[in-house]
Amino acid sequence: MQLLKERILKDGIVKPGNVLKVDSFLNHQMDIPLINEIGKEFKRIYADAPITKILTIEASGIGIACIAAQYFNVPVVFAKKSQSLNLDGEMYCTKIESFTHKKVYDVILSKKFLNADDHVLIIDDFLANGCALNGLIEIVRNSGAVLEGTGIVIEKGFQHGGDLLREKGVRVESLAIIDSMTDDSLVFRE
Amino acid sequence: MQLLKERILKDGIVKPGNVLKVDSFLNHQMDIPLINEIGKEFKRIYADAPITKILTIEASGIGIACIAAQYFNVPVVFAKKSQSLNLDGEMYCTKIESFTHKKVYDVILSKKFLNADDHVLIIDDFLANGCALNGLIEIVRNSGAVLEGTGIVIEKGFQHGGDLLREKGVRVESLAIIDSMTDDSLVFRE
Repeated sequence: MQLLKERILKDGIVKPGNVLKVDSFLNHQMDIPLINEIGKEFKRIYADAPITKILTIEASGIGIACIAAQYFNVPVVFAKKSQSLNLDGEMYCTKIESFTHKKVYDVILSKKFLNADDHVLIIDDFLANGCALNGLIEIVRNSGAVLEGTGIVIEKGFQHGGDLLREKGVRVESLAIIDSMTDDSLVFRE
Repeated sequence: MQLLKERILKDGIVKPGNVLKVDSFLNHQMDIPLINEIGKEFKRIYADAPITKILTIEASGIGIACIAAQYFNVPVVFAKKSQSLNLDGEMYCTKIESFTHKKVYDVILSKKFLNADDHVLIIDDFLANGCALNGLIEIVRNSGAVLEGTGIVIEKGFQHGGDLLREKGVRVESLAIIDSMTDDSLVFRE
């Protein structure tokens, strides 16, 4: 997605430890017109898929998923990173290791909101080693729902989480795939 | 907001400990058309305010803020509940006690994204004792920005956080204020 790649080149900042900061437009401050274009692009890519629900994970994925959901006319459901007093009843549970935060989260989703009748699109802001996405995919599998595919805003191709999932047959659609990045260069996959 | 009140009566579930579960449409699964109506209503209420930025806090506020921001044509910035490796530079910091999770969070916002030129609307899903909202207001005050007001989806009027803020002169606009709730009755403020 050209508009996104241009924005990453303009405002993204590469930090030590393979960190790409896009906090000025994607995951701290959010540029809503850009995210609308991202939502439209996910709909264009998945135009023929019979999506019934968009699944994401708190926190940064939620805004993108909600904006995108407007183009799919489906509800969003987001997995939560820790047990809440307000969540009860049966849960799908998994563990996710965060690349950014260097820790392991318990991730839960109420069974009420995903079942075998659903066709799921998973949306998230980043895909690196794939831990978060693998956790969400596990939740979809456990629910019996059909995983139609995943929509990722920025994939760090050099961390290979996306390629491993593609090899397993998961449809991974990333709007920008970065194959290498250093302080002064950032190379997108063609 | 009549549509919202009807939905709370239809799908909200009162649990012990003054907990109102609205996870089927607001803060776990999200009904996007309803949230669009909520966003339009915030814009109607704040039509004449010169809002430049919508501030919220992760996680449940983000989707509502992003959908609402489409009607204001402004960016969203969301405060984060814990230090992230991806956040550096100068931060506004505060502490917020969560009614739901019974713990205290460090809450941070990058100083890059809020300054004295901004006119801020704070949006959140719930207002109970006001801890989260007080923390966000403190961040706005520290930034030198003008607080135009707050937009809350559901206020628990019987916990008085909203009334205390109104007494201090903060504009608190809640789309549904619950003055009492029990297992079999839920009374909205007129």
